[in-house]
Amino acid sequence: MNDRLDPSIAHEPLRYERDPRGVVTLTLNRPQSFNALSEGMLAALQAAVDRVAADEGARVVVIAAEGKAFCAGHDLKEMRAEPSLDYYNRLFAQCGRFMMAVQQLPVPVIAQVQGIATAAGCQLVAMCDLAVAVREARFAVSGINVGLFCSTPSVALSRNLGRKAAFEMLVTGDFIGAEEAKAKGLINRVVDAADLAAEVARLVDSILAKPRMAIAAGKGLFYRQLETGIAAAYDDAARTMACNMMDPSALEGVQAFIDKRKPNW
Amino acid sequence: MNDRLDPSIAHEPLRYERDPRGVVTLTLNRPQSFNALSEGMLAALQAAVDRVAADEGARVVVIAAEGKAFCAGHDLKEMRAEPSLDYYNRLFAQCGRFMMAVQQLPVPVIAQVQGIATAAGCQLVAMCDLAVAVREARFAVSGINVGLFCSTPSVALSRNLGRKAAFEMLVTGDFIGAEEAKAKGLINRVVDAADLAAEVARLVDSILAKPRMAIAAGKGLFYRQLETGIAAAYDDAARTMACNMMDPSALEGVQAFIDKRKPNW
Amino acid sequence: MNDRLDPSIAHEPLRYERDPRGVVTLTLNRPQSFNALSEGMLAALQAAVDRVAADEGARVVVIAAEGKAFCAGHDLKEMRAEPSLDYYNRLFAQCGRFMMAVQQLPVPVIAQVQGIATAAGCQLVAMCDLAVAVREARFAVSGINVGLFCSTPSVALSRNLGRKAAFEMLVTGDFIGAEEAKAKGLINRVVDAADLAAEVARLVDSILAKPRMAIAAGKGLFYRQLETGIAAAYDDAARTMACNMMDPSALEGVQAFIDKRKPNW
Repeated sequence: MNDRLDPSIAHEPLRYERDPRGVVTLTLNRPQSFNALSEGMLAALQAAVDRVAADEGARVVVIAAEGKAFCAGHDLKEMRAEPSLDYYNRLFAQCGRFMMAVQQLPVPVIAQVQGIATAAGCQLVAMCDLAVAVREARFAVSGINVGLFCSTPSVALSRNLGRKAAFEMLVTGDFIGAEEAKAKGLINRVVDAADLAAEVARLVDSILAKPRMAIAAGKGLFYRQLETGIAAAYDDAARTMACNMMDPSALEGVQAFIDKRKPNW
Repeated sequence: MNDRLDPSIAHEPLRYERDPRGVVTLTLNRPQSFNALSEGMLAALQAAVDRVAADEGARVVVIAAEGKAFCAGHDLKEMRAEPSLDYYNRLFAQCGRFMMAVQQLPVPVIAQVQGIATAAGCQLVAMCDLAVAVREARFAVSGINVGLFCSTPSVALSRNLGRKAAFEMLVTGDFIGAEEAKAKGLINRVVDAADLAAEVARLVDSILAKPRMAIAAGKGLFYRQLETGIAAAYDDAARTMACNMMDPSALEGVQAFIDKRKPNW
Repeated sequence: MNDRLDPSIAHEPLRYERDPRGVVTLTLNRPQSFNALSEGMLAALQAAVDRVAADEGARVVVIAAEGKAFCAGHDLKEMRAEPSLDYYNRLFAQCGRFMMAVQQLPVPVIAQVQGIATAAGCQLVAMCDLAVAVREARFAVSGINVGLFCSTPSVALSRNLGRKAAFEMLVTGDFIGAEEAKAKGLINRVVDAADLAAEVARLVDSILAKPRMAIAAGKGLFYRQLETGIAAAYDDAARTMACNMMDPSALEGVQAFIDKRKPNW
């Protein structure tokens, strides 16, 4: 099903496309508002990741965007219009729930960054499992410039970058370029704009070439074990890997390796 | 109040200066002993951070130093003169208390590193929120060279650098240069000696341009959330950010952004 | 005792050599099977680290390898021959026990990497305290290529590299080169093949020049404090450092420093 062909959703904030291989592309589609994470956009994103979570044929998610910005973070106009603690608590909780859902998906999520990513937009890049950006992309957690420290983005940022680099970005609000973002750990690859789709496709193809089950088990374990001490991490990992090895795809993969042939997956 | 003008404290181990904007500069002032962290120096530093903590007009702290060394760590002569477990326990606890107080201050602390920083001096650089160093600065956790593994500095160092790089410094005692320190995450910026004060001033100005409350809430959250799992981190961050947003400075900052004007802070 | 001279063990999977200074060299010696971590190899490695742990004269361990590969991870043929969850649970637990034993040794462990290190072989490099590799060495966690996500290696890898870089390696199975491995934090130094032994010897000499007790106490503390919050880390570190300071070697080392002479260790 390719939703791109459905004219009724041409003006949806988020385009949802899924190809027959299970590659889901979510395209932030409010370029005129720099793809701000309005309540509507967040709801659409949450619905999209819920849909992926329920789709056993899904293999990988690409989060892309239309326009000059990848994502400019929260919709400040919408936020300013309802100045209540309760509303802000709900809004940031909604955003955090979506961000965690990205990490909890059983398939890898790749940020395809074609432009600037600021505040919660930078957070989204940080929360994706992988990120590829064009050379011109720039990244900032710039809330502090309007008096709003990017606290929720700091959770994701400080789990990608070293703490001095993260704190500098948070307290200055300054942009960093794509190469610097890569050196600091925020993104994986930097490419020319003309090569962005192809580079993401290479990562997608690499993921598609592996069994879904092994990646799902591995991704889950990866984030779980980061949260525990090393001994508990090894216990969890050993059990996870033993289960993975018992899966027919792994038994066949290992046998194929021994036989010096391609696995019959 | 500018304490520099007070001749009675010219020979104090630590110079305390505060300008009308709330910029506090602490200058380690025992160049002849390489600004060693003697009990006296530690007491002066603790008193200084306590004074900053009580000063609601303080906005940022710069820790600078006189002489060729930024800080050479503990005063080994003083330490050697009282060889008792109880004394050493008290001394390292005193030092750790000061180091934690730096992190707990509601305002950012910038290390302005004009020379070598070793052992607990290197730890001090690591504990500051931000650090700018001259190209000639060098860093080491060199206690192991006299048979004293830099255990307390390792706490700070390993929260700035990757573990292999940190362990190598700890076990070899070798120096690294400023550019390497930056690449590894110990410091933020490297400048020519002539530009050190100006570069720190740029960071200071960037901080002064933002509301105190937002930075205080954000700094507190930043270090708290590093100590918890990601779900708890997001909960804490969402509440912190909602409170921050309710502050008049943030409401005005966001409104000014919408109105395309400067905030009236 | 130099076991190299004992012809009875020429075909042992692991060569154990110890020189009079306490330098233990463990050489993976199954080049024809790329030094795979078979049950036999793991048992030999466990026995070797147990022997080092019981040897109070041991000062440092070097893990080296014969042949073109440093270590290719688990022995897939052996694994495939016994497809039972119970067996895999025991195998990965055995491997994890050895990996943890490397970290728990009171002496530093250096990986001397002369060739490729994949899967659990890459994990072994990550678990060593220090690692030196030749320019041609390459590193991968390639289990995913046969449908087996490198879950246990991910525990070690993600404690060396940033999470995006680690996840990319785990999900793609792609190799990285030695320089990239160094930039990302997996290894400490990259040298020409002809200089590998000499560079490792420099690290060994640096370690031998320091008191065993200080390094043992420091290494233990280093890994303990990484697992706790910063306040608990400082408490532990302060106590560890106070004990270290009371050791005669530290008291002499500090006195020698004050006297501007070499310590009499």
